[in-house]
Amino acid sequence: MISKQLPKIWYGGDYNPEQWDKDVWDDDVRMFKLAGIDVATLNVFSWALNQPDETTYDFSGLDAHINRLYDNGIYTCLATSTGAHPAWMARKYPDVLRVDFQGRKRAFGGRHNSCPNSPTYRKYSERMADKLGERYKNHPGVLIWHVSNEYGGYCYCENCASAFREWLKKKYGSLTRLNKTWNTRFWGHTFYDWEEIVPPNALSEEGEGNVSAFQGISLDYRIFQSESLLECYKIEYNALKKHTPDVPITTNLMGTYPELDYFKWGKEMDVVSWDSYPGIDTPVSLTAMNHDLMRGLRSGQPFMLMEQTPSQQNWQPYNALKRPGVMRLWSYQAIAHGADTIMFFQLRRSIGACEKYHGAVIEHVGHEHTRVFRETAELGKELENLSDRLLDARVNAKVAIVFDWENRWAINLSSGPSVSLDYVDEVHKYYKALYDRNIPIDLIGVDDDLNQYDIVIAPVLYMVKSGYADKLKAFVKNGGTFITTYFSGIVNEHDLVTVGGYPGELRDLLGIWVEEIDALDPKHANEIVVAGDWGRLSGRYECRLLFDIIHSEGAEVLAHYGSDFYANTPVVTSNSFGNGQAIYVGSSAEQRFVTDLVASLCDQKQINPLLNTPDGVEVTERVKGDQTYLFILNHNSSPTNFQIGKKKLNLLTGQMVNGEVTIAPRDVMILK
Amino acid sequence: MISKQLPKIWYGGDYNPEQWDKDVWDDDVRMFKLAGIDVATLNVFSWALNQPDETTYDFSGLDAHINRLYDNGIYTCLATSTGAHPAWMARKYPDVLRVDFQGRKRAFGGRHNSCPNSPTYRKYSERMADKLGERYKNHPGVLIWHVSNEYGGYCYCENCASAFREWLKKKYGSLTRLNKTWNTRFWGHTFYDWEEIVPPNALSEEGEGNVSAFQGISLDYRIFQSESLLECYKIEYNALKKHTPDVPITTNLMGTYPELDYFKWGKEMDVVSWDSYPGIDTPVSLTAMNHDLMRGLRSGQPFMLMEQTPSQQNWQPYNALKRPGVMRLWSYQAIAHGADTIMFFQLRRSIGACEKYHGAVIEHVGHEHTRVFRETAELGKELENLSDRLLDARVNAKVAIVFDWENRWAINLSSGPSVSLDYVDEVHKYYKALYDRNIPIDLIGVDDDLNQYDIVIAPVLYMVKSGYADKLKAFVKNGGTFITTYFSGIVNEHDLVTVGGYPGELRDLLGIWVEEIDALDPKHANEIVVAGDWGRLSGRYECRLLFDIIHSEGAEVLAHYGSDFYANTPVVTSNSFGNGQAIYVGSSAEQRFVTDLVASLCDQKQINPLLNTPDGVEVTERVKGDQTYLFILNHNSSPTNFQIGKKKLNLLTGQMVNGEVTIAPRDVMILK
Amino acid sequence: MISKQLPKIWYGGDYNPEQWDKDVWDDDVRMFKLAGIDVATLNVFSWALNQPDETTYDFSGLDAHINRLYDNGIYTCLATSTGAHPAWMARKYPDVLRVDFQGRKRAFGGRHNSCPNSPTYRKYSERMADKLGERYKNHPGVLIWHVSNEYGGYCYCENCASAFREWLKKKYGSLTRLNKTWNTRFWGHTFYDWEEIVPPNALSEEGEGNVSAFQGISLDYRIFQSESLLECYKIEYNALKKHTPDVPITTNLMGTYPELDYFKWGKEMDVVSWDSYPGIDTPVSLTAMNHDLMRGLRSGQPFMLMEQTPSQQNWQPYNALKRPGVMRLWSYQAIAHGADTIMFFQLRRSIGACEKYHGAVIEHVGHEHTRVFRETAELGKELENLSDRLLDARVNAKVAIVFDWENRWAINLSSGPSVSLDYVDEVHKYYKALYDRNIPIDLIGVDDDLNQYDIVIAPVLYMVKSGYADKLKAFVKNGGTFITTYFSGIVNEHDLVTVGGYPGELRDLLGIWVEEIDALDPKHANEIVVAGDWGRLSGRYECRLLFDIIHSEGAEVLAHYGSDFYANTPVVTSNSFGNGQAIYVGSSAEQRFVTDLVASLCDQKQINPLLNTPDGVEVTERVKGDQTYLFILNHNSSPTNFQIGKKKLNLLTGQMVNGEVTIAPRDVMILK
Repeated sequence: MISKQLPKIWYGGDYNPEQWDKDVWDDDVRMFKLAGIDVATLNVFSWALNQPDETTYDFSGLDAHINRLYDNGIYTCLATSTGAHPAWMARKYPDVLRVDFQGRKRAFGGRHNSCPNSPTYRKYSERMADKLGERYKNHPGVLIWHVSNEYGGYCYCENCASAFREWLKKKYGSLTRLNKTWNTRFWGHTFYDWEEIVPPNALSEEGEGNVSAFQGISLDYRIFQSESLLECYKIEYNALKKHTPDVPITTNLMGTYPELDYFKWGKEMDVVSWDSYPGIDTPVSLTAMNHDLMRGLRSGQPFMLMEQTPSQQNWQPYNALKRPGVMRLWSYQAIAHGADTIMFFQLRRSIGACEKYHGAVIEHVGHEHTRVFRETAELGKELENLSDRLLDARVNAKVAIVFDWENRWAINLSSGPSVSLDYVDEVHKYYKALYDRNIPIDLIGVDDDLNQYDIVIAPVLYMVKSGYADKLKAFVKNGGTFITTYFSGIVNEHDLVTVGGYPGELRDLLGIWVEEIDALDPKHANEIVVAGDWGRLSGRYECRLLFDIIHSEGAEVLAHYGSDFYANTPVVTSNSFGNGQAIYVGSSAEQRFVTDLVASLCDQKQINPLLNTPDGVEVTERVKGDQTYLFILNHNSSPTNFQIGKKKLNLLTGQMVNGEVTIAPRDVMILK
Repeated sequence: MISKQLPKIWYGGDYNPEQWDKDVWDDDVRMFKLAGIDVATLNVFSWALNQPDETTYDFSGLDAHINRLYDNGIYTCLATSTGAHPAWMARKYPDVLRVDFQGRKRAFGGRHNSCPNSPTYRKYSERMADKLGERYKNHPGVLIWHVSNEYGGYCYCENCASAFREWLKKKYGSLTRLNKTWNTRFWGHTFYDWEEIVPPNALSEEGEGNVSAFQGISLDYRIFQSESLLECYKIEYNALKKHTPDVPITTNLMGTYPELDYFKWGKEMDVVSWDSYPGIDTPVSLTAMNHDLMRGLRSGQPFMLMEQTPSQQNWQPYNALKRPGVMRLWSYQAIAHGADTIMFFQLRRSIGACEKYHGAVIEHVGHEHTRVFRETAELGKELENLSDRLLDARVNAKVAIVFDWENRWAINLSSGPSVSLDYVDEVHKYYKALYDRNIPIDLIGVDDDLNQYDIVIAPVLYMVKSGYADKLKAFVKNGGTFITTYFSGIVNEHDLVTVGGYPGELRDLLGIWVEEIDALDPKHANEIVVAGDWGRLSGRYECRLLFDIIHSEGAEVLAHYGSDFYANTPVVTSNSFGNGQAIYVGSSAEQRFVTDLVASLCDQKQINPLLNTPDGVEVTERVKGDQTYLFILNHNSSPTNFQIGKKKLNLLTGQMVNGEVTIAPRDVMILK
Repeated sequence: MISKQLPKIWYGGDYNPEQWDKDVWDDDVRMFKLAGIDVATLNVFSWALNQPDETTYDFSGLDAHINRLYDNGIYTCLATSTGAHPAWMARKYPDVLRVDFQGRKRAFGGRHNSCPNSPTYRKYSERMADKLGERYKNHPGVLIWHVSNEYGGYCYCENCASAFREWLKKKYGSLTRLNKTWNTRFWGHTFYDWEEIVPPNALSEEGEGNVSAFQGISLDYRIFQSESLLECYKIEYNALKKHTPDVPITTNLMGTYPELDYFKWGKEMDVVSWDSYPGIDTPVSLTAMNHDLMRGLRSGQPFMLMEQTPSQQNWQPYNALKRPGVMRLWSYQAIAHGADTIMFFQLRRSIGACEKYHGAVIEHVGHEHTRVFRETAELGKELENLSDRLLDARVNAKVAIVFDWENRWAINLSSGPSVSLDYVDEVHKYYKALYDRNIPIDLIGVDDDLNQYDIVIAPVLYMVKSGYADKLKAFVKNGGTFITTYFSGIVNEHDLVTVGGYPGELRDLLGIWVEEIDALDPKHANEIVVAGDWGRLSGRYECRLLFDIIHSEGAEVLAHYGSDFYANTPVVTSNSFGNGQAIYVGSSAEQRFVTDLVASLCDQKQINPLLNTPDGVEVTERVKGDQTYLFILNHNSSPTNFQIGKKKLNLLTGQMVNGEVTIAPRDVMILK
């Protein structure tokens, strides 16, 4: 478990007492207790307060808050406050200010605003972590460290440019190798001196919508910036660890946030935490996928839900309230997918600045007699009752979906074949096919082992990194089922095309050659025509976007195109390879097709739903030792019925359930 | 009246003889006389011409134009020419050039382009005003001063930053107070030195669509910039006044122009003037509202229509001609709402640069045999006939609508709850409800007295400034009817939320507590369900955008929501308070609801239409001593009938009208 | 013919062997031979490779490529490599980097990126041309010079500003004349020193969508930048010509590319070449118009198709494959309109950077067994068979359409009357009317002679340059038919309005006066009502956008408006002038009207279709001596039938055709 000090599902959230006067603080504690809140995240944005100038540090306020909370049985998740630099620092040391994508030097303002390669920022953020570690290392109220906040945002300043050149020297060794890798003879971009290299932004190589003229440099710059920010995190991590080797350290991530390669980040965290902000229209399956992705960053280790809103957000175009029951439902969804904490942004609403219309446990009215508070307190009570039973329980999945940030970057940076290809959407389509059937799924990175899975799905595996084709082949040879799609196997990890016929290194595994790739405006569809039946596949399905023109080189053709000049040529194939099979879906298929295909393959592998439920009822399972916990979540706004095989105990009600069961709208069951 | 020298409705417009050769000038005068034009606005953009370098001033051309016009019976509205700085000034003193919202130093170009805190600009604009005042103080042809032109446009340069800091020091006294007011402990923005404060723009605190990370600084910057520009105006005003204490001074405003707090500006002007540029699709009620707003800037004092186009504009996407009769109709609409002048931009069309496709009295063809000229001349004749009869006549309204620029800024700057909330649209909806019923309306600022009104409407009174709640309560206690809407009473004048329950300081007045505010994409509607009838309210109406979840604390519930989880909770309430009542409309209601509600309240107060007319026939009244003038404007393109009670004289035809009357398409009656 | 060394239709394209290793080169040559490729464009982007630093030049690689190709019977189209400067140059001499429209100094990146007034760029590009000329002047494999690549892109740097001022001094002689011409008294922009003038961009006079506050300076800046880039071309041209007076020189243009006045460019080229990139939805008539425009740049001289893609592109939103047969069909379309070469971008696909998804003769698979290669090879064989028969054959047209870049710029820069007026679209509408009837058309510039034509059409001849009205009058007096449209005759070559009544200098020629110009949102239509019949005109047609309100001053009224306040006033007129007639179409008419009008006028002039064919079958003719070649192109995807009068030989099949003929889908006939 994350910490033995608090052996239950932590319940709390971001708390900014420094924005309030003393008279409010006691009332806060009173209400936290009413709500069952036992952890508060402090100090997220107090750098300027704790360090009013270059040499002065003053933690007296923070001391008082931590102590007052601890005296009332509330633990602290202690942030390092480096998510926004102080104004005095920006004025005195402008190197902390970023240069943006447009090439503009920023002025002081906002947050998550520091240049990750600023010497000043690195020096003072490390010093702050060191001071905090030193000061609170023996405080029993400090449960966990929260480094900075929601890392993100690239910088294009001169310091970054210099650091990038050093990074490139280390990566490539010589300009000859760099020139070759970036294919700089194209458009005569050969570099003869490292100093000639400038960051790729709107003034150099990149344009609207992230398209780059040189994918090589743009891809490297993303990797470099992700690592630069990670380096900032690690500097603080190390400064803290020195003082408190036993206190876990995390930083809050953001699901499929595009800028950082979170698989690299996960490796550097003691526990993954993340901030989940679905909107009213976000598919619940997408939220689930985000949870599974976050769980995947550390190979299935339970994660923290560090932030969610008790009700509305402030930064969406239309900030709907969470409907009654939804906050509880989505909280259990997080737990159902592996979360061991439920935490909010924020415990009390600000009265000024841009988050004052973001929901909070304590609303502007300032008392507990609100719907939001009541729902919070009810959940608090339930979590208390659950005690430590679910902690450390794991999800066991036989199906894995590969998610890779570098692959995603390369797809986005590509000029052609289609502007409408969205990697996350395509991944989600395959995820949803499994999710809708209540089949557990792991989201894994390309460094993860495949052996524990029966089925591995890698949608749009455009980039095949060194060694990855071999890993996939070994998996299939051993009997695994591999599914990939159109626009896969095209490039290596440097975005250089693998010549000799698409899908490149996957060609023999898939038993096909893709001769051409057609790209049409998504308003035009073609058809996937299944001749006869194949598993659950039958009849005609729509497909769009990209259309691979495929020659089978041994693969069985499961379906043909229905129209256009490649009508009657293969669109879906299955290749026997060793003891397994490798499936190729040559176009962006509609959900119904993906659902039928994936279900057919699960049938073959005898991977069955945890439970058969109607639409909108999600089922997951967490396992701890020999105990399994079945989560049943009704996302419908009406009561829904389904069958349960064996008699089970509903942990939330203490009642046994059996046979035909009715679940109330937005209700949750945890069955043992 | 504006000036005793010309005791009639002034008729004329902007005139740029300096763009033409001498041979044209005499022909201009000939045609001005044909058109009944008696005032020409000169010198609007002649700074570079009058001051070819730093030390040389040459007014010989201007002398000649003023004299020639005066010799022909045409007065001059004399502009100070400071709406665009000369190119030599921009080159020699770059401090006159603005830094824009993107942080870019502008180069020479455009107009309304000077930094309002530029020492150079202030020095030379004052000197120019002084020179003009000195030179023309005894000229009998100079009717009025026209300072600069259409002030507007913010600057973000270093001079503005310094001036802003000084302004903040004066406003807040200490950084402690400033930090508190801006809530800078949010995101760790605490300032320890005034120099750390930078203007809020795209490089610091503000983003797309005007949303700010810190509303406090952004709101102050708007107030500061509005005042900085006003200070430029006042510098010139004072320089002129010194020479000509009896010549009125104005500057031309722009209706609901978003950047300037015109209520502050109105106080500094001898007479308000404004430029009215409705497009072919602009609702006529919106034009009317703009007129009433301009009249409201100086508490009902008649204003000048300084600019309108005789026919088309050039800067709209599609610049339609004014249809036959429309120029006359809209001219009388201005008069009907309180204008004592009708003036055009422009008297003769330019042949080069960006306004050459803007309409003019004298078109490019250069003669008077055009539709536009004929219509101009016919109106000129009518205005001559009207003589001084309407001058100084007032509009008497029993209903006032509150309009507040700072409230509007705060709404626009807000991050959440909805991007689609448009303050002007919401105000216009309530305005239109009255306008369509031919009920006179005053648009008033928050400093204006309420005692003269029976009904006061403050749509989306988000910001309640210090003392304003008390003013409203006194008004209602005394028997007044007050109407406000959703998202009101939320913040104080610093955009800090009033804690303790929405609608904050208005809570007891309205007898409600708003627990939550739902925000939905405007494509989703809820319903306002009126149980039984209430006045003219009956049945179901649509509402959108924001949905306050209301608890009555004594207020009568007039209507409930029809759907969603707050179905059957209050949406419209009425609270008895002292001798009056306070109405709350908890969502953005469709026009039909607002119309029925406002009509019901007018019925209660026995505020009746000036006349009952069919759709599209507007009626207003101006009163002078014991004489009332009824304006009837047919905006329809077909003849329309209605009843007139008593026999009246139509001033425009000299005929008596009575009983059933037919008004021709786009025709106007002024009945005495 | 372009060069006697290769007396056939050249076949080949861009080739970048420097991006590949040696082992690929021999295979390339093998496949080039298989495909019938006889010309390769080398060295387009090899500046950095050939000149690794300021003093070192190394052409050894280029030598080898030229020699290897020549040894295998393949000629070289030799580019000068100056389309992108080397990275070392950008670092050492930042004056080569542009300042963009936003005023931002660019960093190294992209291509077509050099400031055209950079002393460094001019010095080193001249030196490169000189070196290449010197080195390859006696090489028998070098067929033609290809200067730089796709010139374009404006710069706004200080060097350009200085050069612009010098250019203006030369053009205007005095500031007095410049101020007058730019009408700078408008908005007080009078310049008293040349140094006060700054380039018009987003920081000074220009805004979104190219609208300018001062058309005068903006128009001059476009002329200046077009000439600056042309000057760069000429510097290289002269450096090459000195060494190889007999080798033709070209640079590749881009059809209706907006930034350069190609009629001026054509005069400086030995042969025009261009890059044709229609998308899957581009009307085939628009492609045809582009070919005719390119042919028109040098008065009908055959041109080179320098680039087209064998299949897909990479820079469109959706990069569709060329359907089977389409590459061949469009290749012959180029020849049918005057091309004497068929060349591709590119011969072998890159594996890295932004054009790796652009089609190529040799795809990533690296062998010849692809659809694209097969189609290429089949066409190669046909072109070999055609030998020199078509070379130098001319198109004889009796109808000309005037196209003028400066007119286009002035229309785009205009503020008002409508943002939706698109010059190219309007020209294309008239072009299509003739194209659809298989009537040959010349696209001509305003310097071209009109005497060879029976009909001259100048859609939206907004700008009438000095002397052009007289030229048109002489043409009509001599019996010619002239057609022009709404918004014509408005300004002179400086964008100054011709006063005295629209259409200005064309007023007597057209026999009309346009009193007003209405502009409506294109969603609103009016009608063109033809009273009785006039030629093929009959009944009602739609018109939109602009609506001239016309008084006939002698012209016959062919049609009236159907609605609005100018219903029943003239919209289409015909004026007898000398022996000819001048037609005016006062609004943007639907295609059907234009088609019927133009057909009627052709009937009058007895200009008959080359052949009557069903929709989608294009017919053109090229004439060489007394031999005529009829091109028949079936753009339909189904077989199509039509009648041929006399028996003819199909050069592509060697068969005679006669009477009723069927042409296969996307097939081509060349009949002698």
